[in-house]
Amino acid sequence: MKRIYLDNIAGTPIHPEVKEAMIPFLEGNYGNPQSLHSFGAEVNRAVKNAREKTASLINCTPEEIFFTSSGTESNNFALKGIAWANQKKGNHIIISAIEHQSILHSAKALERMGFKTSIVPVDKFGLVSPDDVAKSITSETILVSIMLANSEVGTIEPVKDIAKIVKEKGIVFHTDAVGAVGNIPVDVNELGVDLLSLSGSQFYGPKGAAALFIKKGVRVLPFIDGGIQEEGRRAGTENVSGIVGLGKAAEMAKIEIPGRMAYLSALRNRMIKELPEKIKNIYVTGHPENRLPHHASFCIEFIEGEAMLLRLDMEGIAVSSGSACTSRALKTSHVLVAMKIPAALAQGSIVFSLNIFNTNDDVDFVLKVFPPIVDLLRKMSPLYQGK
Amino acid sequence: MKRIYLDNIAGTPIHPEVKEAMIPFLEGNYGNPQSLHSFGAEVNRAVKNAREKTASLINCTPEEIFFTSSGTESNNFALKGIAWANQKKGNHIIISAIEHQSILHSAKALERMGFKTSIVPVDKFGLVSPDDVAKSITSETILVSIMLANSEVGTIEPVKDIAKIVKEKGIVFHTDAVGAVGNIPVDVNELGVDLLSLSGSQFYGPKGAAALFIKKGVRVLPFIDGGIQEEGRRAGTENVSGIVGLGKAAEMAKIEIPGRMAYLSALRNRMIKELPEKIKNIYVTGHPENRLPHHASFCIEFIEGEAMLLRLDMEGIAVSSGSACTSRALKTSHVLVAMKIPAALAQGSIVFSLNIFNTNDDVDFVLKVFPPIVDLLRKMSPLYQGK
Repeated sequence: MKRIYLDNIAGTPIHPEVKEAMIPFLEGNYGNPQSLHSFGAEVNRAVKNAREKTASLINCTPEEIFFTSSGTESNNFALKGIAWANQKKGNHIIISAIEHQSILHSAKALERMGFKTSIVPVDKFGLVSPDDVAKSITSETILVSIMLANSEVGTIEPVKDIAKIVKEKGIVFHTDAVGAVGNIPVDVNELGVDLLSLSGSQFYGPKGAAALFIKKGVRVLPFIDGGIQEEGRRAGTENVSGIVGLGKAAEMAKIEIPGRMAYLSALRNRMIKELPEKIKNIYVTGHPENRLPHHASFCIEFIEGEAMLLRLDMEGIAVSSGSACTSRALKTSHVLVAMKIPAALAQGSIVFSLNIFNTNDDVDFVLKVFPPIVDLLRKMSPLYQGK
Repeated sequence: MKRIYLDNIAGTPIHPEVKEAMIPFLEGNYGNPQSLHSFGAEVNRAVKNAREKTASLINCTPEEIFFTSSGTESNNFALKGIAWANQKKGNHIIISAIEHQSILHSAKALERMGFKTSIVPVDKFGLVSPDDVAKSITSETILVSIMLANSEVGTIEPVKDIAKIVKEKGIVFHTDAVGAVGNIPVDVNELGVDLLSLSGSQFYGPKGAAALFIKKGVRVLPFIDGGIQEEGRRAGTENVSGIVGLGKAAEMAKIEIPGRMAYLSALRNRMIKELPEKIKNIYVTGHPENRLPHHASFCIEFIEGEAMLLRLDMEGIAVSSGSACTSRALKTSHVLVAMKIPAALAQGSIVFSLNIFNTNDDVDFVLKVFPPIVDLLRKMSPLYQGK
């Protein structure tokens, strides 16, 4: 059976060139990059090279890149590292209502330690208003964290405008750019952010390798304490093969992003245009234009997202009904709730996220297979009776 | 030039069978284990299998294994997770003077949060005395963490005896077994520990994949907050290829440890016996018998460890002069200081740590090459004049 992977927000395939770059570090190049001998030195050079490539992708210096094990760890590091470093200045943090679980739960953990969180709302497109952020700032505010792009609804936030307001007040600004980096151009200077999270698994790198950008001069307490790795700010033996893979993925993304965006948005636009022609009561979620190029998300009335997901899976098509980090929790998405999508409709959430190996044939197949699945499920659904 | 890697405390080579097990997860099997579709399911099964193998190696249940990105993260998770979960019970933590930097610095970070640390001493062999631990316990003690084996001097600690005392008082006991697991038999039930850190990179698994054993019923706050991975206790997309590699390494270790120990200790014993026959003023560090089977460590008078390391490197031999996590810091080892080895002698620290691919020929080469290096360096050393 042909299998079509359209759940790339949960992690992309690894690019074959990324895999090839990683292999030597699973074989002969097994030195520890902190070791002083030649086995260590050759691996140290590879980590250094990966750091340069990762920095180049977001236009920062290599010294501003700190490798971590996941976007989630980067987000924990950012929130907790900044909060702990600034607790004498204040105890107030601002985030948005559609942040990733790693931001929401880090904020909750910090609340248990005495910090307070304000959660700014979003509009029906999932957009955060810079004004709302401005209004939430108090004299106690030490950190604002607003994501760059939401993986569940694809919306790209006005981070540049928000950062400007936050920085004018002299407050640290972090953006969770895990869904964005590698998929759209991201420049930390243009955005004006102090910290930025990214993850290789979102742009053809391996799972297990991610990074946090920390602008030079920004004080952050270490999150993982121990040895001298990552300038003493993130201890632990480096995941060398993963870091090398992330570096290679960053190098490729830097060159290929424009082409990828053009290619993927064309495929994506077909889904956004043609699925509503074939399915009734289907609504695009997220912003119609300011959205990730590989991302098509919908709510479909009278059906459970999980049911669609499982039926599509039987046809070889992998999609998601929200974030992979919560998918097995089977809760209504907090993102859709924040966008004030009615709970019944939010249950029918489905996300098609493309990768560069997907083709027009894949989209054709989805357009052929999916509408009959919707029809079938609706006939089976007690929610649909009489509609 | 023939190259001989004898710095396996800084991480072993990856076993070819481990690498082969990992490759599918760098290629076709790129699903997110939390995804509900078949791409996710097949990867989820692989993570589950790795969890079972890792559990089996230390004789716990799979539900008691929590994957992390490094031994350092496991140690941070253990200390901080236990401290935060028990701060209403007390604020006192006991560790030993020869713990890894990730334990020492986690304890320091906790001190900044209001916790207090007692550091129990070691004897000249690097052994912690169970009595000293008992004497350090107060009504405020919530956690004792004593390592199972020290990577710098090879000494295996009387963890079973220490755990017995600690558990009789109803206090949580953690052991950093990163240097031990996979190299000697480790059974969490026999040891009687509540938490145990291990790392795949110490026994032919990849860097970036490690685990924390948390005994069922022991309350630990999450260290990395976010999604539902690892039962909500350690969030972040799983490093699938790394975890699969760790599982394979654990499976192999379970079977091969007795043979590995016999093979490696024979090679090691040659170094411990024959080097002192060829070099004057050389002293074995650590315990003469209760030590890791692949581990030979020395202090050599009148020479800097770094100088030996670099000279050996020129001959193709990789060794270390302490922990890789501190090697670039070039400080005198806190382990040797704690063992009351005079600072001048501690400067001459050198560690030969073997792997299963090393041979008697490798040892022959070291025995041939190293003594002349020592002679040469001594002639060049101002410390040696007139000795």
